[in-house]
Amino acid sequence: MLSVDEARARILAPLRPTASEIVALPDAWGRVLTGPIQARLTQPPADMSAMDGYALRAADGGAGARLAVIGRAPAGRPFAGQIGADQAIRLFTGSVLPDGADCVLPQEDVERDGDWITVREAAQAGRHVRRAGQDFCRGEVLMPGGVRLGARAIGLIAAGNHPWVAVHRQPRVAILATGDEVVMPGEPLADGSIVSSNAHALAALVRAGGGVPVVLPIAPDDPAAIASVADHLSGIDLLVTTGGASVGEHDLVQASLATRGFALDFWRIAMRPGKPLLFGQLGGVPVLGLPGNPVSAFVCALLFLSPALARLGGLPDPAPSAVEARLAAPVAANDHRADHLRAALATDSAGGLIATPFDRQDSSLMQVLATAGCLIVRAPHAPALSVGAAVSVLRLDGLGL
Amino acid sequence: MLSVDEARARILAPLRPTASEIVALPDAWGRVLTGPIQARLTQPPADMSAMDGYALRAADGGAGARLAVIGRAPAGRPFAGQIGADQAIRLFTGSVLPDGADCVLPQEDVERDGDWITVREAAQAGRHVRRAGQDFCRGEVLMPGGVRLGARAIGLIAAGNHPWVAVHRQPRVAILATGDEVVMPGEPLADGSIVSSNAHALAALVRAGGGVPVVLPIAPDDPAAIASVADHLSGIDLLVTTGGASVGEHDLVQASLATRGFALDFWRIAMRPGKPLLFGQLGGVPVLGLPGNPVSAFVCALLFLSPALARLGGLPDPAPSAVEARLAAPVAANDHRADHLRAALATDSAGGLIATPFDRQDSSLMQVLATAGCLIVRAPHAPALSVGAAVSVLRLDGLGL
Repeated sequence: MLSVDEARARILAPLRPTASEIVALPDAWGRVLTGPIQARLTQPPADMSAMDGYALRAADGGAGARLAVIGRAPAGRPFAGQIGADQAIRLFTGSVLPDGADCVLPQEDVERDGDWITVREAAQAGRHVRRAGQDFCRGEVLMPGGVRLGARAIGLIAAGNHPWVAVHRQPRVAILATGDEVVMPGEPLADGSIVSSNAHALAALVRAGGGVPVVLPIAPDDPAAIASVADHLSGIDLLVTTGGASVGEHDLVQASLATRGFALDFWRIAMRPGKPLLFGQLGGVPVLGLPGNPVSAFVCALLFLSPALARLGGLPDPAPSAVEARLAAPVAANDHRADHLRAALATDSAGGLIATPFDRQDSSLMQVLATAGCLIVRAPHAPALSVGAAVSVLRLDGLGL
Repeated sequence: MLSVDEARARILAPLRPTASEIVALPDAWGRVLTGPIQARLTQPPADMSAMDGYALRAADGGAGARLAVIGRAPAGRPFAGQIGADQAIRLFTGSVLPDGADCVLPQEDVERDGDWITVREAAQAGRHVRRAGQDFCRGEVLMPGGVRLGARAIGLIAAGNHPWVAVHRQPRVAILATGDEVVMPGEPLADGSIVSSNAHALAALVRAGGGVPVVLPIAPDDPAAIASVADHLSGIDLLVTTGGASVGEHDLVQASLATRGFALDFWRIAMRPGKPLLFGQLGGVPVLGLPGNPVSAFVCALLFLSPALARLGGLPDPAPSAVEARLAAPVAANDHRADHLRAALATDSAGGLIATPFDRQDSSLMQVLATAGCLIVRAPHAPALSVGAAVSVLRLDGLGL
């Protein structure tokens, strides 16, 4: 059996980031840049006022000095002339500093009387002026490639004067639930039926990871029905199956896909929940076979599908990032399989994370999983730990998970 | 001038959560439940096998015992009869436990020979059986209202047999940028022009907060043009303006909207960046006027618009949640305005957060804002702090911001 890290490395190895597409700037939120964005202009484009007030020469602006207001320069309408001795120009936040001026006096620091101002607080050269290029200069790289764009990045790219952005296409992930007993929510239920939850949870996880889910009709436990998925993978970057990856007679995915040339890479991982995990290639499309158990499927998806989505989507570091927390309850020694304990997550008075493993860890308990704030990662053969010990946790809060 | 907390309370006070709409389960990801979701069935619906193996009576399953395999029960096709003494039924993970059986022996713990099995590892009553209702029972509340649905919640609601979900309508937030100098990215630039970045950053922040942005055409510094927005607020839950909230002659939003019955609540907050913030009501629509400076606009949006979105969207606690970090560089004493220092955020070896305030805090620096991992919140009159001191930070990483 492979370790979790080995399995992840083998899943990621054949995956390549999707190609580029051009989207309008507002549609680029949440998308991943395929290349760096360079500023198309200098910001501020000229020396500009940071205040509503008056532009002048600092040398003329001693306390008590009297200056003639010879014009005004609203933001967007620069003053065409030049400032001379003892002259001032009325301007506003964002106005271009007129030629000859070297500072701005805020309006609350002068007294105005008709076309004259009297200085109350002495001016200082350079004060309240935003220098041309102080934020960025034309040609400067504003954002590197491989970055998922948040609101601030969108604002910065707009300021760099880009109406269009080249981003990675969203990976398309087909999801195939299998099993005679599985029915869609709201469909007629027979005795022994189980309502499909995996496909929906996984589709949402794919969306959280920036992908586009394609939920296929549920396949019965029939080799021909399962195998026919091979005919419908055009435009799909990754096929995810659930169920049928274990060792029973009804675990047909592997055997069924083999009839269509499925090339198996591996199918067992030393982890819990979720030992039976399948990975291989079907006609050039990577196939990730997750367990049928919903909790196992979700944990495996977090450990393997989310990183796969990150790699396909063009993000640089696809390993799930663990953080440290302290135990609020003891945990037993672990066996040879990496374990992922469902736990509540809280913050102590000093801002540290506190993880409380739930008593019930059975992998059938979806409700326990849904309320967990994190998974406590227990390495193979990890020793028993007492309250207060440091553990590595995978956070589940705030990620759309 | 109001404090940040007072201002937020006054902004939130008149806001009411949006009404309910019904969406298909897959579209409910990221949405907020208007009411609790009850399980429509019991999960598991019957006692079920947790393994591929054989159902039997534990009393018959001592090591070395020999039992007759009298049938099979694939998942979804329960065995119709009853198990008697020294009998076993072949079953699989997810199969219903047949009447009469009280345990499951995994297939690796028996030897099979035709229609007989020989027990290798003694059976134990209840072992490898998932009890009916162990996850949840019909009628049980699976999720309370007011919860934003992640992937696990979607899976749990599916398992509860709900194909449709009642969620709050997404708040529709109109965004009006004002200013003669402001042009959309890629449009012709004149001398003194500034490319619009606020509207795009704010639209993305609205999406990150679960809302739908409606970006209005940029209004020039003309009272009639600004006032005409009052005619176009049908179906809008909140109007956000940027620019024109300060004290200069060209700060026309307040005066222009006043001609259409704008009822001002307040317009100054003791904070930095972003003192000139406007709040009021225009024909029943709340209006939040943000500063024109992009950094100020974003910080004010984080402190006031995101909570407003949460309240409109039906989430229970709309205050931005601060966490504790340690300073990696000293900070000076603060004046009477709450400050929000842009800072890098890292994690130390013990898992604690480390905030390093940037040297350049000028509110014109979009690039500095875009690279910040957090804002360090400095209360009015907070004392100078040295390296290692605890500070309260608002995280900016991982929220689509």
